[in-house]
Amino acid sequence: MAAARHIVVLHGPNLNLLGTREPEIYGTTTLAEINQVLTARAEASGATVECLQSNSEGELIDHIQAARGKAHAIVINPGAYTHTSVAIADALRGVGLPAIEVHLSNLQKREPYRRRSYTAAACVGTIAGFGPRSYYLALDAALDLLEGQ
Amino acid sequence: MAAARHIVVLHGPNLNLLGTREPEIYGTTTLAEINQVLTARAEASGATVECLQSNSEGELIDHIQAARGKAHAIVINPGAYTHTSVAIADALRGVGLPAIEVHLSNLQKREPYRRRSYTAAACVGTIAGFGPRSYYLALDAALDLLEGQ
Amino acid sequence: MAAARHIVVLHGPNLNLLGTREPEIYGTTTLAEINQVLTARAEASGATVECLQSNSEGELIDHIQAARGKAHAIVINPGAYTHTSVAIADALRGVGLPAIEVHLSNLQKREPYRRRSYTAAACVGTIAGFGPRSYYLALDAALDLLEGQ
Amino acid sequence: MAAARHIVVLHGPNLNLLGTREPEIYGTTTLAEINQVLTARAEASGATVECLQSNSEGELIDHIQAARGKAHAIVINPGAYTHTSVAIADALRGVGLPAIEVHLSNLQKREPYRRRSYTAAACVGTIAGFGPRSYYLALDAALDLLEGQ
Amino acid sequence: MAAARHIVVLHGPNLNLLGTREPEIYGTTTLAEINQVLTARAEASGATVECLQSNSEGELIDHIQAARGKAHAIVINPGAYTHTSVAIADALRGVGLPAIEVHLSNLQKREPYRRRSYTAAACVGTIAGFGPRSYYLALDAALDLLEGQ
Amino acid sequence: MAAARHIVVLHGPNLNLLGTREPEIYGTTTLAEINQVLTARAEASGATVECLQSNSEGELIDHIQAARGKAHAIVINPGAYTHTSVAIADALRGVGLPAIEVHLSNLQKREPYRRRSYTAAACVGTIAGFGPRSYYLALDAALDLLEGQ
Amino acid sequence: MAAARHIVVLHGPNLNLLGTREPEIYGTTTLAEINQVLTARAEASGATVECLQSNSEGELIDHIQAARGKAHAIVINPGAYTHTSVAIADALRGVGLPAIEVHLSNLQKREPYRRRSYTAAACVGTIAGFGPRSYYLALDAALDLLEGQ
Amino acid sequence: MAAARHIVVLHGPNLNLLGTREPEIYGTTTLAEINQVLTARAEASGATVECLQSNSEGELIDHIQAARGKAHAIVINPGAYTHTSVAIADALRGVGLPAIEVHLSNLQKREPYRRRSYTAAACVGTIAGFGPRSYYLALDAALDLLEGQ
Amino acid sequence: MAAARHIVVLHGPNLNLLGTREPEIYGTTTLAEINQVLTARAEASGATVECLQSNSEGELIDHIQAARGKAHAIVINPGAYTHTSVAIADALRGVGLPAIEVHLSNLQKREPYRRRSYTAAACVGTIAGFGPRSYYLALDAALDLLEGQ
Amino acid sequence: MAAARHIVVLHGPNLNLLGTREPEIYGTTTLAEINQVLTARAEASGATVECLQSNSEGELIDHIQAARGKAHAIVINPGAYTHTSVAIADALRGVGLPAIEVHLSNLQKREPYRRRSYTAAACVGTIAGFGPRSYYLALDAALDLLEGQ
Amino acid sequence: MAAARHIVVLHGPNLNLLGTREPEIYGTTTLAEINQVLTARAEASGATVECLQSNSEGELIDHIQAARGKAHAIVINPGAYTHTSVAIADALRGVGLPAIEVHLSNLQKREPYRRRSYTAAACVGTIAGFGPRSYYLALDAALDLLEGQ
Amino acid sequence: MAAARHIVVLHGPNLNLLGTREPEIYGTTTLAEINQVLTARAEASGATVECLQSNSEGELIDHIQAARGKAHAIVINPGAYTHTSVAIADALRGVGLPAIEVHLSNLQKREPYRRRSYTAAACVGTIAGFGPRSYYLALDAALDLLEGQ
Repeated sequence: MAAARHIVVLHGPNLNLLGTREPEIYGTTTLAEINQVLTARAEASGATVECLQSNSEGELIDHIQAARGKAHAIVINPGAYTHTSVAIADALRGVGLPAIEVHLSNLQKREPYRRRSYTAAACVGTIAGFGPRSYYLALDAALDLLEGQ
Repeated sequence: MAAARHIVVLHGPNLNLLGTREPEIYGTTTLAEINQVLTARAEASGATVECLQSNSEGELIDHIQAARGKAHAIVINPGAYTHTSVAIADALRGVGLPAIEVHLSNLQKREPYRRRSYTAAACVGTIAGFGPRSYYLALDAALDLLEGQ
Repeated sequence: MAAARHIVVLHGPNLNLLGTREPEIYGTTTLAEINQVLTARAEASGATVECLQSNSEGELIDHIQAARGKAHAIVINPGAYTHTSVAIADALRGVGLPAIEVHLSNLQKREPYRRRSYTAAACVGTIAGFGPRSYYLALDAALDLLEGQ
Repeated sequence: MAAARHIVVLHGPNLNLLGTREPEIYGTTTLAEINQVLTARAEASGATVECLQSNSEGELIDHIQAARGKAHAIVINPGAYTHTSVAIADALRGVGLPAIEVHLSNLQKREPYRRRSYTAAACVGTIAGFGPRSYYLALDAALDLLEGQ
Repeated sequence: MAAARHIVVLHGPNLNLLGTREPEIYGTTTLAEINQVLTARAEASGATVECLQSNSEGELIDHIQAARGKAHAIVINPGAYTHTSVAIADALRGVGLPAIEVHLSNLQKREPYRRRSYTAAACVGTIAGFGPRSYYLALDAALDLLEGQ
Repeated sequence: MAAARHIVVLHGPNLNLLGTREPEIYGTTTLAEINQVLTARAEASGATVECLQSNSEGELIDHIQAARGKAHAIVINPGAYTHTSVAIADALRGVGLPAIEVHLSNLQKREPYRRRSYTAAACVGTIAGFGPRSYYLALDAALDLLEGQ
Repeated sequence: MAAARHIVVLHGPNLNLLGTREPEIYGTTTLAEINQVLTARAEASGATVECLQSNSEGELIDHIQAARGKAHAIVINPGAYTHTSVAIADALRGVGLPAIEVHLSNLQKREPYRRRSYTAAACVGTIAGFGPRSYYLALDAALDLLEGQ
Repeated sequence: MAAARHIVVLHGPNLNLLGTREPEIYGTTTLAEINQVLTARAEASGATVECLQSNSEGELIDHIQAARGKAHAIVINPGAYTHTSVAIADALRGVGLPAIEVHLSNLQKREPYRRRSYTAAACVGTIAGFGPRSYYLALDAALDLLEGQ
Repeated sequence: MAAARHIVVLHGPNLNLLGTREPEIYGTTTLAEINQVLTARAEASGATVECLQSNSEGELIDHIQAARGKAHAIVINPGAYTHTSVAIADALRGVGLPAIEVHLSNLQKREPYRRRSYTAAACVGTIAGFGPRSYYLALDAALDLLEGQ
Repeated sequence: MAAARHIVVLHGPNLNLLGTREPEIYGTTTLAEINQVLTARAEASGATVECLQSNSEGELIDHIQAARGKAHAIVINPGAYTHTSVAIADALRGVGLPAIEVHLSNLQKREPYRRRSYTAAACVGTIAGFGPRSYYLALDAALDLLEGQ
Repeated sequence: MAAARHIVVLHGPNLNLLGTREPEIYGTTTLAEINQVLTARAEASGATVECLQSNSEGELIDHIQAARGKAHAIVINPGAYTHTSVAIADALRGVGLPAIEVHLSNLQKREPYRRRSYTAAACVGTIAGFGPRSYYLALDAALDLLEGQ
Repeated sequence: MAAARHIVVLHGPNLNLLGTREPEIYGTTTLAEINQVLTARAEASGATVECLQSNSEGELIDHIQAARGKAHAIVINPGAYTHTSVAIADALRGVGLPAIEVHLSNLQKREPYRRRSYTAAACVGTIAGFGPRSYYLALDAALDLLEGQ
């Protein structure tokens, strides 16, 4: 699988509302725009991305499991499930692919319950607080990591 | 949309069992009966309701998102997700509709973990402890709120 | 006592300041105006209300005890005592009348210490977050409850 | 003051309801009956008691302060203020009279917030769980203590 | 329903990965193999089992509700939902069937957040730490329990 | 068993050191002296006492179990085991005899870990802070209780 | 109201005992002496003070509310209510006058529960630990603040 | 030691009261009856059991240590020591035999302090909630485990 | 040393940024201006001040130690070290000079971690919330204290 | 300052040991090597970096303050001060430059006290877990951010 | 007792397993070997030691009490009772002999519940982490202490 | 480096005040006297010591790092930094030399925040409570440890 790296990008609950949802926190860029930039950026590196969104914890786990076999890494913004889902963290550990956790906002500046992340401990690393750029940096990091293997 | 107010009523997990589930806590009225009263009561005020139940956190988020555009307010009994779902609270905040949280039982009299509500902070207000009447009062409150706007 | 239901409405500390006190939280309606609406609304249902305010925890307990014998239900906004008074909760339990807790603001959105309610567990239910309407809904709920007995 | 010992007995909030208030917890003896037994029992020992009840934290503090000068000891059942009143504890420490805390029920078997006592640390000792007998044992203990001085 | 006992066996999130997922914790037996042993073992006792897996909390609740009417008992390994799902616990309580909680690993030896179980309190008992044997012991226990009724 | 009431008095760890052990906390009366007073006082009421001391948690449990059949009530000062022994509390619950917890010192004035009592919740009531008099009041209370049955 | 500044000084529970109450903590100056100094000191600045003491939480709230209209600032030593009264803090916020919290002793050196202040967050600032001088510094601060407006 | 497996079964404090102790929690089967079933059941598998009970933490540790050399596995119901004894857990770790923790009742449904188990982390697994059957399942599990070695 | 009192004023980390740093919290007065007022104010009382600022915890400790011998009192704003430095508190205790803790803002209104002060317990008292005036009041308090010795 | 962006890169305590310090956690790359890559990478973007290391909290604050005026952004790995320094966080807030927090390791996988970050809340965002790449991604992010202004 | 110092050395639960018990934590030296070194080392200083081991909390208390009169100091490794026994701490305080707490392993590197020591606060000091050498250093310290008296 | 062992002895903040600082806690021996004894004692064993004191956390880290290469072991009394410095602990882990933590006083008898040690977990062992003798025992332990390698 040397030539073409494939990255699955997972967006958690309510990220489909991006652009209109609490723009003072999450900005005005839409998810489609983010996915477009990710696609172009991956392409420029000779890689491919597959972007999926779901509001369902179970479906996100299905997507993580399905990534095994077809993808080399996962970029995931677990949204609100970051703070409550042991099951997504278990799925990430279960498939054994390198994963990178992404957040648009800086969670350390928000409600206390948003500071706990179950999923981060199942990832290689975390990038948070840079708005849509968090995703782009995570893609770079993922491609970088794969190169380093 | 001045003339006809439309309210989406969402019932969370296990509320489809109503009437047979732990009746000493939740009473013997069924969900269908509650929905009927809500429909009639709305009609009497020249409004309409749409009642949906789901056991799935993701599906409830889908329903909340779908309410945007068609409904003027949400009445929601998040059931057990009240205590564990940051994602439903985020969805309510995300769509920006006035929402009212409803509970059949008085949660302050029950297990300590039922006293924490993630979703209440994303709602206008809460009505709890009156059995099926909690729903009817919430409908009144919703219509009242919309009138006041 | 079938014909004329009598409800005691109790307002806790600082509620006499209503209308001028932190209006961004509590609104501009005065307590007198709320009492007037309650009186009219009760009358319309063939019931009567008696509205009392006190800044003193002990006096509120006296009022709760005095309700026994003359009233069929209590509507109470314990104000700040909600969070600190075991004694008012004990009084409510002691007189055995159905009681309904009311709050103008949605306490789940405020300081953490306002999320704990000693008194709610001694009430049938709670209505919070609807401004003065919280009281009106509570009156409806009280009359409804008494009808249901 | 050698010959006639004088004891002030203070009953806190809701103890005036005794006999009718939650009898499965507090029993059916009334406060008047308890006071009668205390009076007789003191008399039998050549002592006097003065029994006062108040629902108000401030008034109980007034009574504690007033005991200085006329009484040799205080027997106090602070009721629900046991768990919330630093001020009553400060008053007991302030007047410097030996005080004995009394409870009808065994607080260790009840709600967790009833297990904390601010006032006990300002007393010589505590007697709890024996119903009205808690008071009688406390009176004996007070007279005993004074004898031992 | 005397002759043929029917048991629903529910496997929670990520258990479909069994055999390849973190084998140092969960072993190398696959879920299919476990289901086969359970089927054979039930058959040997003149009973039947129905084995279902889902990554979705909502779907697991659906399965629990569907068990009412067709099954005599539930054997459930709620996986990561053990620690976060009040809703699954409510479903188990709601259908009123005897349920047995199963875990492959000994949760007391793992991360602190894996020591809390919302679901165990809604079950008759728990069997944990014996790998696939946990399921077989649970099946024995379920059949035993039904016999004892 | 009307005529002769029999009370087992149990002294926990280190109470055999009484009189010489940290006298500024525990006083100078010895355990033998306390036992003598208890014996005399019981006799004066036509009752008998049996006083036992042990430093061992297990032996205290043995003594509690042995009380069943021969004693009508237990007076127990569990000493330091008050704060750490679930097993002694279980023994008291197991034998079903009325028990009274005694402490020489007022535990509310001491280290925080001395404020928690596992054993008190398995007793009828508690008497603490009166030095050796705590025992004498407890004996009175026990005899009183038995009379009241 | 430019010429004559008026300051209400409020003393909370047990401060009337000053001079005789636990002098090793609170000193030997009486409240009357403090009030005299405050009156003289205000006069020297062309201002007036009104000094009130109450053991009752409700009465202190009444005094705070009454200050609105007649006073330009409040100096308050809430005594033990500092640690337990949300209602006094709400009253201070409700009247909107600048308030200064005063304590005779340094609360950081005392019991842990004396380190929490509900009322301080409703004041401009706090002065603690200087004995009666805490009041005098607070008066200076109040007059200074008013000058700065 | 291939032919005859030997299992030491340890019963902790108060289990000798079984049958008469709080039967609504622990049932009416006696410890002798349980031991008989265990003996018969082991025999049927060509194994032997040795059943010991003690109320003393130290004696239980002695028994665990003595098992080394003569037994192949330990089945232990540590009773109340489950929640308070680090020393028993250390003993189990110290002798290095596979151990299985047993509980008659489902601890997750009881007091919060019964949910913590020091000993479970030193065992292979836990079986709880099935009454006397918990022991029989544990014996099966122990024999199964030994077979699997 | 009767005639000329000497006070060391210590400013902790980031206080050199005063005037430009988060002016909505800390105001626009610079540290130089504060020092000037302090110098003048001391002079007016026949005293002298020495004002030192450091961002380093160790250097602040050096300054505190150096004050011994040359100064009669310390006025200190430990800035962020208030909440994290046991070592500065130990230094203050170590030199034995009377110290006064100063804060520009009212820490009770800010983040929870700013409410804990290690240093306050090593000071005579605290003055907080009055902006630059906090320093001036502290200087007055220090001179007052020294006069009172 | 449009043409040449200048970034200050700050390395906290013990980062000078990089390459030899606990390489299983921190890897074998030295700090000099990281600084070299950062310098080259910045140069490639027409920017400049200045890399500073210090073991002293105070010196790091000095460096942050000195960045004001000369730098456009700060990239900071506060090392162990991340978890204990309110003062560094205050400095970052005080200078008002955009800052990015960097960590070599994924702190969510380590000791609990490493999960709390005082400094992150004073930064735009955080990048953690990618070894030396965390720095390179942070530099990219900083340059990106500045472009976006 | 000037000439011959006598030291009682107490070994708590499971220390009799030393040498074979979890050697990766506790090493391979046996308790007999440690006792031999202690005996020789004491002899070399003209002192005597008496070494006792027990798995029972009560027996250890008996040994501590018995030391009074015959020994000048106690060296104690309370093993697992360090973390759970208030009674042993009370015994040490009760006999008033200087005691030194010893641990083979560095408890700060182990499970959180091993970091709490009830007994250390009843000792002069603690020596931990040096394997068998912890005992030898403690003996030196004890002899040193006695010399210093 | 066989012949001459070299030990770096580090004294943390405020230890330079030794002899005059709170002598009731820390004694009257000065740091110079301790260093002298250490030097002589090392010499007697054919070893050398180098004694350094600093009030600065950063400087102590510098000293720890500088010990690498020249010293065989570190004896450190981190003073107040024991409780607050993750960075010193990281430095000790970073240089990989055996380190021994020393305290003059028994921290278990003091304020709760003095019971937590970040640094102890980075050391071989701890010696606390013996005054200056703690250092001498630590030196013995260090030389012993080096011999044992």
